[in-house]
Amino acid sequence: MSTAALPNATRLSALAAILPDGGLLTRDEDLERYSRDWSGDHVGRPLAVARPRSVEDVAALMRFCSAAGIAVVPQGGLTGLVGAAVAAPGGEELVLSLERMSKVRSVNPIDFAIVVEAGCILEEAKRAAEAQDCLLPITFGAQGSCRIGGNVATNAGGFNVLRYGMTRDLVLGLEVVLADGRVWNGLKTLRKDNRGYDLKQLFIGSEGTLGIVTAAALKLFPRPSRVETALVGLRSVEDAMALYALARRGCSDLLSAFELILRDGLEVALAARPDLTDPLARPYPAYVLMEASAGGEIDLRALIESFLASAGDLVEDGVVASSRAQAERLWLYRETMVEAQGRGGRYLRTDVSVPISQLADFVAQALAAVRHAAPQTQALAYGHVGDGNIHLNVIPPQGLAPADIAPLLHGAEEAIFAVVDRLGGSISAEHGIGRVKQRAFLERVDSVTLDLAKRVKTALDPQTILSRGRILPLVPSEDR
Amino acid sequence: MSTAALPNATRLSALAAILPDGGLLTRDEDLERYSRDWSGDHVGRPLAVARPRSVEDVAALMRFCSAAGIAVVPQGGLTGLVGAAVAAPGGEELVLSLERMSKVRSVNPIDFAIVVEAGCILEEAKRAAEAQDCLLPITFGAQGSCRIGGNVATNAGGFNVLRYGMTRDLVLGLEVVLADGRVWNGLKTLRKDNRGYDLKQLFIGSEGTLGIVTAAALKLFPRPSRVETALVGLRSVEDAMALYALARRGCSDLLSAFELILRDGLEVALAARPDLTDPLARPYPAYVLMEASAGGEIDLRALIESFLASAGDLVEDGVVASSRAQAERLWLYRETMVEAQGRGGRYLRTDVSVPISQLADFVAQALAAVRHAAPQTQALAYGHVGDGNIHLNVIPPQGLAPADIAPLLHGAEEAIFAVVDRLGGSISAEHGIGRVKQRAFLERVDSVTLDLAKRVKTALDPQTILSRGRILPLVPSEDR
Repeated sequence: MSTAALPNATRLSALAAILPDGGLLTRDEDLERYSRDWSGDHVGRPLAVARPRSVEDVAALMRFCSAAGIAVVPQGGLTGLVGAAVAAPGGEELVLSLERMSKVRSVNPIDFAIVVEAGCILEEAKRAAEAQDCLLPITFGAQGSCRIGGNVATNAGGFNVLRYGMTRDLVLGLEVVLADGRVWNGLKTLRKDNRGYDLKQLFIGSEGTLGIVTAAALKLFPRPSRVETALVGLRSVEDAMALYALARRGCSDLLSAFELILRDGLEVALAARPDLTDPLARPYPAYVLMEASAGGEIDLRALIESFLASAGDLVEDGVVASSRAQAERLWLYRETMVEAQGRGGRYLRTDVSVPISQLADFVAQALAAVRHAAPQTQALAYGHVGDGNIHLNVIPPQGLAPADIAPLLHGAEEAIFAVVDRLGGSISAEHGIGRVKQRAFLERVDSVTLDLAKRVKTALDPQTILSRGRILPLVPSEDR
Repeated sequence: MSTAALPNATRLSALAAILPDGGLLTRDEDLERYSRDWSGDHVGRPLAVARPRSVEDVAALMRFCSAAGIAVVPQGGLTGLVGAAVAAPGGEELVLSLERMSKVRSVNPIDFAIVVEAGCILEEAKRAAEAQDCLLPITFGAQGSCRIGGNVATNAGGFNVLRYGMTRDLVLGLEVVLADGRVWNGLKTLRKDNRGYDLKQLFIGSEGTLGIVTAAALKLFPRPSRVETALVGLRSVEDAMALYALARRGCSDLLSAFELILRDGLEVALAARPDLTDPLARPYPAYVLMEASAGGEIDLRALIESFLASAGDLVEDGVVASSRAQAERLWLYRETMVEAQGRGGRYLRTDVSVPISQLADFVAQALAAVRHAAPQTQALAYGHVGDGNIHLNVIPPQGLAPADIAPLLHGAEEAIFAVVDRLGGSISAEHGIGRVKQRAFLERVDSVTLDLAKRVKTALDPQTILSRGRILPLVPSEDR
């Protein structure tokens, strides 16, 4: 059945009948906040916004939409930044927001497991875990806005991946509504289960294209009783990576974050917040913000201090936070640098990864490539280098006309991606493909990978109802 | 094309031509060692055994087999114990042994990554990692025989899962030959890569039914410089689980093994090896063998001793190994108990999991259920309880006629599985389904899960060429 089979008014009244408690929004002013993402760069036009309260609601919606051929895009906190959860501009996609399914269903400190609904804000799930003296380790800037369903659907990363893994590594079980409205109940907290195919893996990181995650069971960890944070100044990115190699060994597996910041990024933070002062006695080309955490009877302070002393050749200067407040102040350099980038308007965010052993080469080559391709821009390289992940962002000069910004940033992106390709890296380490990175993805993907991805999509969503045109291209028959 | 389309001699000579260097074995005496698994319980009859030397060989074999409709079963070290890699009895399946693809392609201590071919024996891969001061953490009894491809295909578990995860958690990339002979090259060492669907997840744990893993890139860890091993005596399984809850917190994330042994299991070990003496001054109902490991400047000995002292209410007595030799001796109780079980002939191995919080209940209820269903047997419960994983094995009385053993063990298994079902557990925590557990799997699997699994199988192997009848049932048209 094509999307044109029923007139819009008929479709909307049928959808409203499925959600009788005002769960369907159709007025333009109501749709507004579901129509643009966190960055404001990606804007769409939904047919309507459905806000189910239960898995049964979601199932009923999908039964109707698959029968009526209505395209659906599940939506979480809109912080993914690749246009996966924003409706397409045509006004034909139903946004299915999970925001009213936000309960923490259970926290079990013996199983070290939490079960949460997809619409739960990450920070609230983290707080529920903390209340049981446990840690839900997914941690990143958007944690106050993003939702668990989106974290799962995008396989979110963040600061603590080097210790605890990506979201995929933390998922014990999922509840998913399929494109045809059937419910797949894989919501379990078993740590080991090799009964046939591990179907939940299909949905993790699929960006809403294979099913709608309605709830997730996630691994918890003991909440660390001690956290040590240090900021160190280094001569170069090479030295930062050498320090990382030492730190993985010297801090055992207790290292929980290892963030690279270059001097120009630090200066962006200093300029944006005059209350921040240069953290070390003199400037250094590169900085590393590192964190280790532990419970039990481990003298973590002694561990990190003896480690830094043993790495004396590499570490030019450094400070170990003596209080929680000082640790937060060290993280403030990192956070302010990120916030300040967006203040001048549109800029290029990249999110790439290379093998850890190639990271220093990558930074040098990519910065040189941007200088060559777009010399008038400012390029900032920072990121979770312990995972080989760099956010290399490019800020256009102030006052440039919007029409000139797009080609400039596109040229810079092409230059960066060429270096990624040369070093065997990924053009999307954390954020996924969505619609924004699809062209770059399709230019690079090999034919076997693309064929397998299409086969999986066809197996799970033969009508292409779900998140149409994300990751995989629209085929002509779908592009109505 | 049906398997009967070409006469056997034609098929065999075509296969031999693909592997001109004697890679195809066809004589009965040559097939013998590829026809039965480690336990000897599962025996099949291959059409022939193909032993490719390269991914190109595997691709050529699969191109031919898919065109000619020849069923293929990939084979590793034959230690999976569920009949997944043993040929079916009909003499129509080609065994594709990966044993001649056994190279360690690279070890990179900066990327903390190893790339190995599928036929590499796990222990050899572990040794290659150690040579670079790294740890490949997959660890279990069969590590001297099993092969990496089989570890990946079965998502192998083992002793160190609670610290390092299952094999799935360690896979960075795969090279896979598909059923139609195309090569999927997903062999990368990136730590973060969210470019579209994570296709490697399809093949991990699929028991050879979706593709043939020919090489894998796996995560490494810093090789621990200190390991502490303790054996403690406890009043009950409940106390063992309470100790585990404390240990996860008290030993931070440094706990690498936590194995439960009951008194009767220990006595099996003592009886089997008269040189082993009772490890503690008096007998206890339950024992825990625990291990913690670390690098760097952590005083692990002090950590584990202070932890055990803090758990004094639970720990009745215990010994912390003072040397590597003593630690190995403590592990010997565990290993001897396992080896000794098989000395009397056929017995029932189960490999189940429940939520950690249910584990003590599970052991009590399952042992009672076996006493009721098969009172003349001896039931031993032991396992990786930190993962909720128990091997509850049942040994028939000596001298029972073989014809009487099978129904007795079947009744015991049904009784154990009924308790697993009641507690929301898994009938296969580590070993998979293969052919041996298929009936029990199909009796329990819900229709949505089964439908999704069949869709995935059809998407990747539409002709059902690969590992036919493992996990999923043969459909009538395939059962020739």
